[in-house]
Amino acid sequence: MTEQYKFFEHLLSGTAAGNPYMDIHLEAAFTDGRETVKVNGFYCDQGIYRIRFMPETPGVWTAVTSSNDPLLDNITITCHCVPAKEGNHGRVLPKNAICPQKEDAEESRFHFAYKDGNRYQPFGTTCYAWTHQPGKIQEQTLLTLKNAPFNKVRMCIFPKFYTYNTTDPEKYPFCQDAEHGFDFTRFDPEYWEHLEHRIAQLDALGIEADLILFHPYDKWGFSKMDIHTDLLYLRYAVDRLCHFKNVWWSLANEYDLMPWKSIDDWELFAHTIMNRDPYGHLRSIHNCTTLYDHTRPWITHASIQRTDVYKTAENVTEWRDMYQKPIVVDECSYEGNICYGWGNITGEEMLRRFWEGCVRGGYLTHGEVYTQYEQIWWSHGGTLHGTCPSRIAFLRKTMADAPEDAAPLRLTPQNHWANWDVPCLCCAHDNSYFLYYFGFSRPAFREYELPEGCSYEIELLDTWNMTTEKLPGLYSGSIRIMLPEKQYMAIRMKKSF
Amino acid sequence: MTEQYKFFEHLLSGTAAGNPYMDIHLEAAFTDGRETVKVNGFYCDQGIYRIRFMPETPGVWTAVTSSNDPLLDNITITCHCVPAKEGNHGRVLPKNAICPQKEDAEESRFHFAYKDGNRYQPFGTTCYAWTHQPGKIQEQTLLTLKNAPFNKVRMCIFPKFYTYNTTDPEKYPFCQDAEHGFDFTRFDPEYWEHLEHRIAQLDALGIEADLILFHPYDKWGFSKMDIHTDLLYLRYAVDRLCHFKNVWWSLANEYDLMPWKSIDDWELFAHTIMNRDPYGHLRSIHNCTTLYDHTRPWITHASIQRTDVYKTAENVTEWRDMYQKPIVVDECSYEGNICYGWGNITGEEMLRRFWEGCVRGGYLTHGEVYTQYEQIWWSHGGTLHGTCPSRIAFLRKTMADAPEDAAPLRLTPQNHWANWDVPCLCCAHDNSYFLYYFGFSRPAFREYELPEGCSYEIELLDTWNMTTEKLPGLYSGSIRIMLPEKQYMAIRMKKSF
Repeated sequence: MTEQYKFFEHLLSGTAAGNPYMDIHLEAAFTDGRETVKVNGFYCDQGIYRIRFMPETPGVWTAVTSSNDPLLDNITITCHCVPAKEGNHGRVLPKNAICPQKEDAEESRFHFAYKDGNRYQPFGTTCYAWTHQPGKIQEQTLLTLKNAPFNKVRMCIFPKFYTYNTTDPEKYPFCQDAEHGFDFTRFDPEYWEHLEHRIAQLDALGIEADLILFHPYDKWGFSKMDIHTDLLYLRYAVDRLCHFKNVWWSLANEYDLMPWKSIDDWELFAHTIMNRDPYGHLRSIHNCTTLYDHTRPWITHASIQRTDVYKTAENVTEWRDMYQKPIVVDECSYEGNICYGWGNITGEEMLRRFWEGCVRGGYLTHGEVYTQYEQIWWSHGGTLHGTCPSRIAFLRKTMADAPEDAAPLRLTPQNHWANWDVPCLCCAHDNSYFLYYFGFSRPAFREYELPEGCSYEIELLDTWNMTTEKLPGLYSGSIRIMLPEKQYMAIRMKKSF
Repeated sequence: MTEQYKFFEHLLSGTAAGNPYMDIHLEAAFTDGRETVKVNGFYCDQGIYRIRFMPETPGVWTAVTSSNDPLLDNITITCHCVPAKEGNHGRVLPKNAICPQKEDAEESRFHFAYKDGNRYQPFGTTCYAWTHQPGKIQEQTLLTLKNAPFNKVRMCIFPKFYTYNTTDPEKYPFCQDAEHGFDFTRFDPEYWEHLEHRIAQLDALGIEADLILFHPYDKWGFSKMDIHTDLLYLRYAVDRLCHFKNVWWSLANEYDLMPWKSIDDWELFAHTIMNRDPYGHLRSIHNCTTLYDHTRPWITHASIQRTDVYKTAENVTEWRDMYQKPIVVDECSYEGNICYGWGNITGEEMLRRFWEGCVRGGYLTHGEVYTQYEQIWWSHGGTLHGTCPSRIAFLRKTMADAPEDAAPLRLTPQNHWANWDVPCLCCAHDNSYFLYYFGFSRPAFREYELPEGCSYEIELLDTWNMTTEKLPGLYSGSIRIMLPEKQYMAIRMKKSF
């Protein structure tokens, strides 16, 4: 029995002759009589082939294989799918792909939902090379993640070679031997099984694996393979991994630091992924200094590194307008003390950027780069040392508490003077909810003209100290709210009647 | 005897009949045989007219008056001018108007100098209505300014009516009586003498008076006079005040909050000023949400209010490129706790903006809005309560110490990766000076490739705690400088040989 949204796996024996990674194709089209899902099987060494399938509807799914290896061809496979258990919501999709009929369709284009319709609000973190560290560190990373507020991890398939990252990993995606080096036509099954194990462990923690397929931090040649090898690798990765419900495809980290790959290459990669991934997991591509054209139809959400040193998460407003898709600021600089400006801001400033971005209807990704520790979270994982993760938990809770149809207040000539200086997330259609975030502003008080005929419960949130103070009574009409003249405060108003 | 750059005044008796403010014109063209300066005299009530003249070259200057009042016409006036005493540098001009021959002409277009060639770096503050407060407060303001780091004050000629500013002043620019209200055709000599007294007192403190000629914070009608009255007022103000060497003309504060005045009106005002002010004092116009077109030839420097809540002084780089003139960010938000976002940032953030702007080759203006005090500095003057003024003094000293030809480092593809995250003021032509400002970044160290063949003294500046730590020895080649992992640090390198 296969649980809905989890995957079914069927092993087949076929030829081990020649190079099956290159030579053998194996497909299976699963159908429950209503829908058909065509998957690609993949080779796992020693004549073993696997067919995986993630049913998204309970019932009986059957497939007949098709292959150029007679041993693998014309085999009937049956998958019995039972409904998802509690906590299993399926993969994440753009919200308007799942519930386009909802009344908040205008806003839903900027958000995500699980396949079962439940809300998903990404609060990611970054551990690029965590699966390439010694096993003990990987276990520590999982333990840390279990207690951290993050529900997405950006992580690389290829190992990473970069400042503070110079140790060779134990395993590589490709086979190698001492004499010939890497064989770029054969995949190391141990590497992939290990990676899959980690992806599954993340899934068990409710964490999405934002898999980075290519990146430039490389001494082994993985960033400079020829296009045929790129595609062989890409097909193999997608055929194996697309059945994990928590997989996202990040085509690249800092694609523009690999100028030897053209935009046409990236577009080809994108379409290769789309052709091989029958489910349509989330797809994006992450920049260094030049944003990719996130209006491209294949991009499900903009995965952005801020390109301005100063104005970062505040640009969510502009990016939403530009791209009309969910905005995930996967790098807005990290808390830390590294010598580079991308990783040495305070926890306070990091948290401020998170709040700014969230109240503007975007999502942020965390990272931490304290270089005095042996493991630096942003790359190795391990342990968190920074001051902002617990505060991000408070923010995540606050955002989960916001109505699903809350949207950033759009400035108009009419509301400009009351709102130009403080971003607001609200339900403008029924005035039921307002969340104002003050950031570095420290007003002694703030005045509001509350919507006519409405009464509100008002809470004062200290986003840094993680306190919520309910102000006594109900508020209506023209009101003045006294504030503590501190940075990082927020005001939340909920309509009482 | 008149000291160079100070003004000579000659009183004449003429008609008091009719309305001399409207009816009588009086001119005098002073010449020392080489240069001729045409000034306009002005009426001061009770049949008294004054002719003022600010000689900028020592020697004997003579003029013969010309007037439509026979009593004022054809009178010979002589002014004996002696050289300026120490500390008297004359009026401030764009630097390249004074020393266009200098080798740093490329950079000098962004800076100021006194008429005598000495450097002037504006570190302004804002006391819009200080001359309209009770006398005791005005004296307190002068005392505060005497001990403050500011060498420019933004101040309004018209009184101000606005939040926290609702008290009527004692005197107005126009005459009034209880029965008829204001007579917009007659100027109150006491008002103007008082204003001049304050301008002279500022001058004695080495402070420029950045006079705001129009502003929208008004209940008396001064912001909505007809164009003829505007011009009558403007001519009178210029004829009287242009002889003070420390006067700047700020056509408006937040010109765009007076939409009933057209761009053509402002252009007419500008040209009226240029026609009446024979010296050519500095001219600009200050915006609220829409920057004026500071490329206009009459504008000597851009007087900017930041239009983005988040990215403020950092835009100096873009504004320099756009306007090719000195950039003075007269409002980048103020330290304080007022309910509005334009006046409730911390002293730390205010100082950060000052440093960012200065290292980028611009200038900033201070303001303070702590509303718990009876006098709020930004408007009333009085006493300073904030945390940033003493730190601005440290910055001013640092900038005065920078070589005159220091310019912001321009990012190029070659220097990008070493400099994208930290602005730098430097002497790139001879590598003699580098000032790096780290702002909110807190690197544990920073590495530099020093220019070949050069050795440097290196200092660590804590811009908030106002300390300068000279690092031991001299530095050359590839170096690493350890930093204290605190915000608001700077590194200064001076070539030793």
